Amino acid sequence: MQLPAPAVSISLLGYWLGIAAVAACAAAAVLEVGRKQFDAFGVVVVAFAAALGGGTTRDLLLGRTVFWVADPTYLIAAALAGIAAFAAARRMRLPLDLFLIPDAIGLALFTIVGTKVALNAGTHWTVAALMGVITGVVGGILRDVLANEEPVVFRGELYATAAGAGALSLVALLALDFNAPWAAFWSGTLIFLLRLAAIRWRLALPKFESLR
Amino acid sequence: MQLPAPAVSISLLGYWLGIAAVAACAAAAVLEVGRKQFDAFGVVVVAFAAALGGGTTRDLLLGRTVFWVADPTYLIAAALAGIAAFAAARRMRLPLDLFLIPDAIGLALFTIVGTKVALNAGTHWTVAALMGVITGVVGGILRDVLANEEPVVFRGELYATAAGAGALSLVALLALDFNAPWAAFWSGTLIFLLRLAAIRWRLALPKFESLR
Amino acid sequence: MQLPAPAVSISLLGYWLGIAAVAACAAAAVLEVGRKQFDAFGVVVVAFAAALGGGTTRDLLLGRTVFWVADPTYLIAAALAGIAAFAAARRMRLPLDLFLIPDAIGLALFTIVGTKVALNAGTHWTVAALMGVITGVVGGILRDVLANEEPVVFRGELYATAAGAGALSLVALLALDFNAPWAAFWSGTLIFLLRLAAIRWRLALPKFESLR
Repeated sequence: MQLPAPAVSISLLGYWLGIAAVAACAAAAVLEVGRKQFDAFGVVVVAFAAALGGGTTRDLLLGRTVFWVADPTYLIAAALAGIAAFAAARRMRLPLDLFLIPDAIGLALFTIVGTKVALNAGTHWTVAALMGVITGVVGGILRDVLANEEPVVFRGELYATAAGAGALSLVALLALDFNAPWAAFWSGTLIFLLRLAAIRWRLALPKFESLR
Repeated sequence: MQLPAPAVSISLLGYWLGIAAVAACAAAAVLEVGRKQFDAFGVVVVAFAAALGGGTTRDLLLGRTVFWVADPTYLIAAALAGIAAFAAARRMRLPLDLFLIPDAIGLALFTIVGTKVALNAGTHWTVAALMGVITGVVGGILRDVLANEEPVVFRGELYATAAGAGALSLVALLALDFNAPWAAFWSGTLIFLLRLAAIRWRLALPKFESLR
Repeated sequence: MQLPAPAVSISLLGYWLGIAAVAACAAAAVLEVGRKQFDAFGVVVVAFAAALGGGTTRDLLLGRTVFWVADPTYLIAAALAGIAAFAAARRMRLPLDLFLIPDAIGLALFTIVGTKVALNAGTHWTVAALMGVITGVVGGILRDVLANEEPVVFRGELYATAAGAGALSLVALLALDFNAPWAAFWSGTLIFLLRLAAIRWRLALPKFESLR
């Protein structure tokens, strides 16, 4: 069975980086829905949706075995991280931006892995880039829909756009016969830096301002 | 083709209990979105989402044939029950809590069947327990998201937690080599009683109270 | 691989009609979320969800290869149409009802194609009719949920009901051994005319008015 992780590196490092990104994403989601007064179980659901939603959507659309059904380590990591964040936030004041860096790493990693998985499944490059973006951003959309808020990914600083730029970069570098791990590394770095720059200087795409 | 029902009992009783739970769940959902001024078709959509959403999500995640595509009896039962509840509510004053008992039975039955189906598909026990909870609660989440309300399952008395306790109980009893129908019966009873106790004494998990 | 388009006609006309319907649906969705101040990427996401959501849901439920993964032309058409609508709306005042006719054609086409695809997959006629309605209306529901609004399909003039009537008409005409392209054409025309009549004379199903 094909594991979803080994895109950044074929090594164990890539696998554990993926697990860490899932955990960071789950913990960040729990802190972000803090104002909503969910109970502990609601918190775990939001953690799962945010951390596993993107890869799950990708696997369903590609007709692959869902990655956490194949390897429950991801599931367990998301649950433990969500519960830990829940417990910690009840005991101490945690800054919301504690997770901005892990979240940006997660966005980069999820997007690159998602694009790579779709390319390996033989899809057209437009589909593969979209699968990368889906893997990167659907978790955040699910989190906001479950919390009954307008998805922040549609409004805020470059988020999906950073993912899209990195996914297209990976597709292009691989088409130009670059070495796969390096193409993945540089495209992931592009996403990470674009995202940090967007937060720092509040970069944003033009807003839709209808004349109606 | 593998039918989703025969977990509680291999007999026809289990099958018709499943159909009845689907119908009760659809009728309850229609009454609960009553304030929303949906039209008759919207009502049927909400009935389908509430009654079939959990099992559908489970089957998609496990890569199985969706249960109501395989056996449309479930679909027909949900549609008829939703329409009947719609018609009845226009003619007489129905108490909202008329469906609390059938809803609790439905939660128990859906969760046990969902866990059993996942175990039969050869998943890890953590995945199987999650599939049980998904089968039990996703319908209610979909209903609330469609009605543009915060999912009640994240706030109210023990709901998903009751489902989780029963799913873990079933997994544990089966691992200890208990007789399968009895393990299912006792775990389902546990969910039902936990849910009733939660309603009666307003039991709840600790709320997330962020210090921010 | 089975393409989703050739239901209305086996010819190339049917295929390009399908592409045009996807594009019209994407453009209409972009204009409808105009008030929400989404950025360009959010606009593309909404365009994809509205234009591809119905067929994607159908293909997942039936266990088929998702149509735009098999043929990315649909994906590219939705993206280009969404971006064009976004750019046009920033430059000139576009009437919202510019897309009411293309939208009604899209509803008719999507519903007929969806019903036909499900029948071809060997499902029960109740399931096939539901798949037709899902293909026709799920895109609009996703659009409204993403925009955090109550799905208009549950409230407004006959929409899902028009789709349902056409899907049942197609099922019935085919069961009576009518010629398949003609059955598709007349059932699609029924949906289109019902929808236009509903807009013109504000036809609606009875609203749910609970006595509670």
